Amino acid sequence: MKLGIIGLGTVGINVLKILSGEKDRKNKEIGDIEILKICDLQNIDLSGYDFTDDYREVLNDPRIDTVVELIGGVGAAYEISKSTLNSKKNLVTANKHLLAVHGKELFSLAEKNQVKLQYEASVGGGIPVISPIKENLFVNNFKNIRGILNGTCNYMLMKMEEGLTYSEALEDAKLKGYAEADPTFDIKGIDTAHKISILAHLAWGELKEFSEISIVGIDKLTKDDVEAAKSQGLRYKLLGEANFDGKELNIRVAPVAVKKDELLYNVNGVYNAVELDGNYTGKTIFYGEGAGGDATAAAVISDIYKIKLGG
Amino acid sequence: MKLGIIGLGTVGINVLKILSGEKDRKNKEIGDIEILKICDLQNIDLSGYDFTDDYREVLNDPRIDTVVELIGGVGAAYEISKSTLNSKKNLVTANKHLLAVHGKELFSLAEKNQVKLQYEASVGGGIPVISPIKENLFVNNFKNIRGILNGTCNYMLMKMEEGLTYSEALEDAKLKGYAEADPTFDIKGIDTAHKISILAHLAWGELKEFSEISIVGIDKLTKDDVEAAKSQGLRYKLLGEANFDGKELNIRVAPVAVKKDELLYNVNGVYNAVELDGNYTGKTIFYGEGAGGDATAAAVISDIYKIKLGG
Repeated sequence: MKLGIIGLGTVGINVLKILSGEKDRKNKEIGDIEILKICDLQNIDLSGYDFTDDYREVLNDPRIDTVVELIGGVGAAYEISKSTLNSKKNLVTANKHLLAVHGKELFSLAEKNQVKLQYEASVGGGIPVISPIKENLFVNNFKNIRGILNGTCNYMLMKMEEGLTYSEALEDAKLKGYAEADPTFDIKGIDTAHKISILAHLAWGELKEFSEISIVGIDKLTKDDVEAAKSQGLRYKLLGEANFDGKELNIRVAPVAVKKDELLYNVNGVYNAVELDGNYTGKTIFYGEGAGGDATAAAVISDIYKIKLGG
Repeated sequence: MKLGIIGLGTVGINVLKILSGEKDRKNKEIGDIEILKICDLQNIDLSGYDFTDDYREVLNDPRIDTVVELIGGVGAAYEISKSTLNSKKNLVTANKHLLAVHGKELFSLAEKNQVKLQYEASVGGGIPVISPIKENLFVNNFKNIRGILNGTCNYMLMKMEEGLTYSEALEDAKLKGYAEADPTFDIKGIDTAHKISILAHLAWGELKEFSEISIVGIDKLTKDDVEAAKSQGLRYKLLGEANFDGKELNIRVAPVAVKKDELLYNVNGVYNAVELDGNYTGKTIFYGEGAGGDATAAAVISDIYKIKLGG
């Protein structure tokens, strides 16, 4: 298996680190994975790897069978993804924004070109959730999906329950590295909407037009709201929810006050959780670290391995 | 893909029901799965299926590529499993007892004969846990695994916290169909030990000699113990735990008082949960229905699908 990696941020660096560090121990799974080219705009000093700042060099390399796109966003990543699939190379991506907005086109390009499109890292970071739905729970008629899908918001809500105001909680999240300089996508619920949209597509086979999703973030929530909920034994969580009523796929994102005896109540800090309700398997919950270079890189590597397996 | 199914209890019946009921809707995943022979000692009236009470007819049918063993136990199931693998047929099993005791031999037979041995339904019923460890989390160096793996015990512990004595709780579990007539394997922790042993094998590649596992069940636990824990904000759970200290694999089963802020505290009734701590992905938890014909059948079907995929 011959990889090209495009985008070498925290996740990309960790993919390299894990693939090389675990090669001998995990020889059966990743021993024969070769990284032929790495592309990033910043020149990172990485001896032993063939480095370029022109992604076309990766896409045009006929030896490369699988491209790992880790840039994010819907600019260059969109062009790279289309071009990868049209060159009959497999695509591994962690890019939820791209899939939520251009997924329909990309999934059909993958099918047309008979290559794989894997995206385990796009939802829930290191939590296996995409492949369990696709490969284990798939026979279900799903009733409902709910998820705590954004670690930044979940951390801020925890801090607000501890007594910080909204602005203080945001400041704290930035200091800890849990919120980006521009946290719009997180606090406005857009990131959560990207992710619940991807999960709904897996469950019901339909990718909702992104503009049709009802999205409310946590930015209107005050310390008073959080405290009022607390006094009633409730805890606000920013939930992405989806259900299919037999005719229409409904998706919404909003802060929801969750009861104490629900498992989601104790999903705190930067942790994520996805809850699926299926007619055969009943309620299933997947919980874990929704972000972080190491965890997300492990998910990217699982996608590479799945392609090796033929999945 | 041509199946033979041996053992037609609740799980087997549900495998048939789901495979035929969802065939059109899930054509891509299960559309081409054919059931060529079904074996059970009881003559069940199933029109449309080729039925036999002699399992050799299944094993000796050269058209069958995959045998689904749903008998349980280590008697006939052991002979059937060996014979399946030695006939170069893939094996799907839900049999935790068999794998915990004879796994070493069976895994090596599968490897020698270059066939697949799939066992998602052996741990956690309908919860995807075997394949997420094997195919998603595998790059981790695991630190620790803990699991609530037996629904019978977990239901009884809930009832004892609600005020029933141990005997009343057991009686209630039998009435509800959650405990078998002979509940020894459940209440003495043996079933939990089988399951944690299988999970430890996945995580660290070593199958512990079953007799070396330290096992304490819930049968010594009194209503007073449960109430004393409750008064301190704790809740007893029968946990299977495993860790590898770099030299030795340690596995134990025992009732453990779990704190209120832990997710496992709210895993109640017949629900199961598995918690894995890995160096890359951190703490991951899988939660859901640990038993039940429908849920377990969905796991068996996911194994059949994995074999189709080449996993």
